[in-house]
Amino acid sequence: MGDVDWVARARQVAARLAEDAVRREAKGAEPVAEIEELRSAGLLALTIPTGLGGQGQGWRTAFAVVGEIAAADASIGHLLGYHYLQLWRPWLFSAPERATELARRTAANDWFWAGVSNPRDQALILTDAPGGGFACDGVKFFATGASVADRLVVSALHPPTGRKLTFVLDAGAPGLRYLGDWDNLGQRLSASGGVEFTSVRVDPADLLDRADDPDDPEAPRGTLISLGFQLALTQVLAGLGRGALRTGAAYTREKARAWPTSGVDSAVEDTHTQAAYGTLSARLAAAELLVDRAVVAFADADALGVGLDPVRRGELGVLVSQAKVLVSELAVEISSRVFEVTGARATAARVGLDRFWRNARTLTLHDPTVYKAAEVGRHVLTGALPRPDGYS
Amino acid sequence: MGDVDWVARARQVAARLAEDAVRREAKGAEPVAEIEELRSAGLLALTIPTGLGGQGQGWRTAFAVVGEIAAADASIGHLLGYHYLQLWRPWLFSAPERATELARRTAANDWFWAGVSNPRDQALILTDAPGGGFACDGVKFFATGASVADRLVVSALHPPTGRKLTFVLDAGAPGLRYLGDWDNLGQRLSASGGVEFTSVRVDPADLLDRADDPDDPEAPRGTLISLGFQLALTQVLAGLGRGALRTGAAYTREKARAWPTSGVDSAVEDTHTQAAYGTLSARLAAAELLVDRAVVAFADADALGVGLDPVRRGELGVLVSQAKVLVSELAVEISSRVFEVTGARATAARVGLDRFWRNARTLTLHDPTVYKAAEVGRHVLTGALPRPDGYS
Amino acid sequence: MGDVDWVARARQVAARLAEDAVRREAKGAEPVAEIEELRSAGLLALTIPTGLGGQGQGWRTAFAVVGEIAAADASIGHLLGYHYLQLWRPWLFSAPERATELARRTAANDWFWAGVSNPRDQALILTDAPGGGFACDGVKFFATGASVADRLVVSALHPPTGRKLTFVLDAGAPGLRYLGDWDNLGQRLSASGGVEFTSVRVDPADLLDRADDPDDPEAPRGTLISLGFQLALTQVLAGLGRGALRTGAAYTREKARAWPTSGVDSAVEDTHTQAAYGTLSARLAAAELLVDRAVVAFADADALGVGLDPVRRGELGVLVSQAKVLVSELAVEISSRVFEVTGARATAARVGLDRFWRNARTLTLHDPTVYKAAEVGRHVLTGALPRPDGYS
Amino acid sequence: MGDVDWVARARQVAARLAEDAVRREAKGAEPVAEIEELRSAGLLALTIPTGLGGQGQGWRTAFAVVGEIAAADASIGHLLGYHYLQLWRPWLFSAPERATELARRTAANDWFWAGVSNPRDQALILTDAPGGGFACDGVKFFATGASVADRLVVSALHPPTGRKLTFVLDAGAPGLRYLGDWDNLGQRLSASGGVEFTSVRVDPADLLDRADDPDDPEAPRGTLISLGFQLALTQVLAGLGRGALRTGAAYTREKARAWPTSGVDSAVEDTHTQAAYGTLSARLAAAELLVDRAVVAFADADALGVGLDPVRRGELGVLVSQAKVLVSELAVEISSRVFEVTGARATAARVGLDRFWRNARTLTLHDPTVYKAAEVGRHVLTGALPRPDGYS
Repeated sequence: MGDVDWVARARQVAARLAEDAVRREAKGAEPVAEIEELRSAGLLALTIPTGLGGQGQGWRTAFAVVGEIAAADASIGHLLGYHYLQLWRPWLFSAPERATELARRTAANDWFWAGVSNPRDQALILTDAPGGGFACDGVKFFATGASVADRLVVSALHPPTGRKLTFVLDAGAPGLRYLGDWDNLGQRLSASGGVEFTSVRVDPADLLDRADDPDDPEAPRGTLISLGFQLALTQVLAGLGRGALRTGAAYTREKARAWPTSGVDSAVEDTHTQAAYGTLSARLAAAELLVDRAVVAFADADALGVGLDPVRRGELGVLVSQAKVLVSELAVEISSRVFEVTGARATAARVGLDRFWRNARTLTLHDPTVYKAAEVGRHVLTGALPRPDGYS
Repeated sequence: MGDVDWVARARQVAARLAEDAVRREAKGAEPVAEIEELRSAGLLALTIPTGLGGQGQGWRTAFAVVGEIAAADASIGHLLGYHYLQLWRPWLFSAPERATELARRTAANDWFWAGVSNPRDQALILTDAPGGGFACDGVKFFATGASVADRLVVSALHPPTGRKLTFVLDAGAPGLRYLGDWDNLGQRLSASGGVEFTSVRVDPADLLDRADDPDDPEAPRGTLISLGFQLALTQVLAGLGRGALRTGAAYTREKARAWPTSGVDSAVEDTHTQAAYGTLSARLAAAELLVDRAVVAFADADALGVGLDPVRRGELGVLVSQAKVLVSELAVEISSRVFEVTGARATAARVGLDRFWRNARTLTLHDPTVYKAAEVGRHVLTGALPRPDGYS
Repeated sequence: MGDVDWVARARQVAARLAEDAVRREAKGAEPVAEIEELRSAGLLALTIPTGLGGQGQGWRTAFAVVGEIAAADASIGHLLGYHYLQLWRPWLFSAPERATELARRTAANDWFWAGVSNPRDQALILTDAPGGGFACDGVKFFATGASVADRLVVSALHPPTGRKLTFVLDAGAPGLRYLGDWDNLGQRLSASGGVEFTSVRVDPADLLDRADDPDDPEAPRGTLISLGFQLALTQVLAGLGRGALRTGAAYTREKARAWPTSGVDSAVEDTHTQAAYGTLSARLAAAELLVDRAVVAFADADALGVGLDPVRRGELGVLVSQAKVLVSELAVEISSRVFEVTGARATAARVGLDRFWRNARTLTLHDPTVYKAAEVGRHVLTGALPRPDGYS
Repeated sequence: MGDVDWVARARQVAARLAEDAVRREAKGAEPVAEIEELRSAGLLALTIPTGLGGQGQGWRTAFAVVGEIAAADASIGHLLGYHYLQLWRPWLFSAPERATELARRTAANDWFWAGVSNPRDQALILTDAPGGGFACDGVKFFATGASVADRLVVSALHPPTGRKLTFVLDAGAPGLRYLGDWDNLGQRLSASGGVEFTSVRVDPADLLDRADDPDDPEAPRGTLISLGFQLALTQVLAGLGRGALRTGAAYTREKARAWPTSGVDSAVEDTHTQAAYGTLSARLAAAELLVDRAVVAFADADALGVGLDPVRRGELGVLVSQAKVLVSELAVEISSRVFEVTGARATAARVGLDRFWRNARTLTLHDPTVYKAAEVGRHVLTGALPRPDGYS
């Protein structure tokens, strides 16, 4: 499969998703068919080594694919980005055989992965089960993709030891209930509802045995996961911005009318309209290069394995935050301002151009941009590196 | 009724509208109940002289009332603003007795008015009917409020004379069909669908006998109507901005959580959040003063009657455009940025905070802001006054 | 003198100042001639009651005059605004006879006033002098206008009592040395250098006997002075913005050339140029209304005398901060962006258009805008009022 | 010399230039010493092939060097960027032997080059001289670097044939007079005054024999020079932005004081300050990547030689304009906003932080950004490529 141009293939999937994105979003069904599209295009196993049955692609391709999908449908791009990260997560723990086996089974079964670990909720609680293992109880909100996943990565607190444990779980395990309570203005197809755990059995063999503890100075590699999530959000926002601009430009070209007093015959000849597209596209082009740079740095950091040191990890954090700050602001700007150059009729519901802003607005609030910007600025001023936590 | 504080009463109506604004918008029914609210509060007859059975209030009160209603529900503010203008429109024609009679009957019947005259459509066509009068045929889009109105003001072309004629019509007249095709991202309750005319009979007595021809240099008063519409949109946007900021502030105060790394205990103590509200509220306060100034100038220009000269009319046009340019940009900015200070959970559909942006985005595209800004700048640079047309 | 239109007169003075503003600034002499201009126009005694020999004008006229002067020369507007405040300052202390006498003598001698009280320096120190009175020692920086003043208002610490005392001083008193060390990028004619005190004798009769202690909840009136300074800076910035826009527009009209590919014959016909002027002028017009509102509130608060309560004082503080936040951002924006619509040749030193940005940039850093914005936002969110201090 | 790290060497030169940049600018002498610095560091011959005696570096290194120098002193960066372009210009004409010889002599003599060809002036006039050759007469303004150059590239009109001819000239040729009339707010050391030609003799051997006629569809390579100038300006602006941010950050770190109500002890700990630096640095990092991409595309286009086709040339034009639009806006923003995070004392003339804004404001007006943005937007909308002219 080394000859496949995966980005081109993602573009084909994206083109199909774009066709009925407005209708699908209005309907708001669980994104089962969409994940099936990703699966049948071979994108779910994209990052799994060929030796384990996957496509053997690296992070650069994976993020590029996420960007293409997100340009058409930011929800699906979001799901795919998180899938790649959750699937990779076992490798961050000191259990390479376990990670290898999971990867192989994922390739074999074309599993879709998701996570249950929103840092701002109360923790899930693990109690020791008679006969070994644990029972897991509690509720977590905003578990993107969990309700349509095959496998979950879950974090929970084990009060007897005070440790936060992470484990892999069959998404269809007894005792799991998907709340279906994601009803937000954007990312409507991202299946980001809550999950309720009632005495869900956790097998000790499914534990990933070193917690990705952000406070452990010995374990910079373990903390890469937070940066992965930040980077995935960043890539989705960049893709979304591209989608908004491209969709807007198509509308302006094909449907917008010149304003009567503009002195030109068609909307595309209006230099005000041109200048707006020119300015926004320049900002976007620059922002995408910044995202690409962060992706390369992320891939490089991953490649270092346990050799990743705190400084390098911290510098990666600054690069990721820098990209996220810029793209967050820009995705909102593009998706709101694009209407100014498409005109009044582009506000029709059937055009669906507002989904870009709704998605951007929703995604950009994942965590506050201003504190990311402060993180970057602190580094500029003092050289300090961001302290790893669930968002940094 | 001179003792009634109409703005306070409008605020009460607004408070009721705000209560279920999210639910009503989601349902998307024709705004019949909402107009009934306005009617029963006495707001429909607000501007009709007391001697004719109305409340005898001037434009300043009327626009203030529109602003209050718009802060709660921009669709209903829009409908009310246009109602005041359509009801006033007969006075711009040289038929004071006709206008007087219509005002009296409006007060007596608590009529709601709307218009059918989108300048960017093909014109409706009047053909001479056997036995006098005309038959009116054609389709007009974006006839805000028409489908829920009692009386309409309609403009149509009479090809035999080449004149554009304006007339009053019973909104329930045979041959009228309301298309119900308004399905846009914002202003969802503004009943802005199209109207189809099939041989609708127009009585000569219902003609308003001097067309408000924007090219007639003798008739600056006749061209006030375009400025009235522009000013109503401006006031609705200002109200909407206020509503967004107020609703956002209530959310931040009551529901938002402090960000973990912010170092403060509650969201309202975060100086980043404070500074954002401070900056936006400063801009809004200034913009509202500019709108108020344009409203006063509009009232003054109206009070001059036919004594209004082109220069004064032109200067009013500059003031209105100035306010509209500023408020358009600001309403979009506030309604998009407010999410940054309410946080991720405020994107829930039940919170409904996105309706402000959707309404702002829809209203601000009525006609392009950049050409309004150019109109103002041309005046700053050369003293030139805007040429009256359907948007200026 | 009740018939004099003082704003018109200020405009005449401003016109003269504008004529050679660029040359005067380049020369950078002490603003002695400029103050003489103000004096001979009768502007120094503007706010002194007619019964005491002055022009009897209130704050609204005074601030309008400051705005006119600042539009031509922000340094001189700054000096005049501070003069009005220092001259008024004795009335804030419980010594009406002293204030009356000072006002009378000021009118008689056409004194120019300035202050020495930068809150961020070390305090001046008062030591008890043998034979009564005090000796004052120390250095204060940024004492705008002091070196060209007739009378100074000085604040100093009296360590034996721990009190901060305020007193009036002849600006030519022995032991005063003006450092002439104001060499900053803007406000070059504002005589804002430091002052060194060496055993300067302070007569007990010159003490203003209640310190304007910002912590004294009983004395909201005493704390009006900080708001006066903030408001004067705000008015100067608004005037400066107007001056920048007006000067730019004159240049565009008279000297700018149409860009070859613009398709128009003269720069004023370029709709991009028009739109920029239109947008900036709309923002400025709104901001000026906000400043005017704060001025009215300031005048009203002053008129309440000791009847001013903390709530009213606090609300005034919010209004002043709101205006300052908006105008600070806008003055910088206008003065920098105006070049985009005047073109490359307007960067010639002899045109001197950069002085507006240099003045704006310097003035807006007096205290950080972001904390003013936070003050306003905190009020929006919680109703809290700003705590009076040297900047609030 | 292949082992030299030329960017590092440029950084050393830049460090020396930065040391006294404020003082040198205030003095405003002709930049003779500065060019000598460049010369003695080997930077003037940087792009000349090693076989001809130069350093053999390509455009990527050359532009990187220009950026480093510009970060310290935008005038000198400007001079150096133009030098590389003028020195390269003979290669764009069909006279490789002439270009080779000029390059060899430049390396041997360490010549500094400049041009005389501002497109918006009246043309210089060539008249046929008795005995062959021409006499050149007229005045050109804004001839950056000419007065301190060794060799000039000059464009002039030959009325008998109607052709615009380009030729090389000894900058010390009889009949040349440097007007020394560059007295603008920024780029004060760029020696951008005018040049008067009085019967300056032009040897036919010095003609570059094919005019770089922008209308000639056969000669896309010839039109690369305009893009080179645009790109050099872009690189200088990017460097300048970096210099402003770096200088500001050093000031904030070393000298700024925490604001009393900020709740922190040092300015670098203020999260508002951090967020501002973070946001600006993120924008700059992205913009620099966009500039780098345009530089690579420029180098690639140059490498194609006469094989460069109009489409590729046009796409390069879009990339260059995109970078220029972004960087122009950003350089002004950074250089103006940086004061907000350095504080009031950073406005002191001796700090000289305003030079960045003055330089940015001057450079960004070279040609209007809005028409560059329109060029980019037109391409986004329609695929149209910019029409080559003196600015595109």
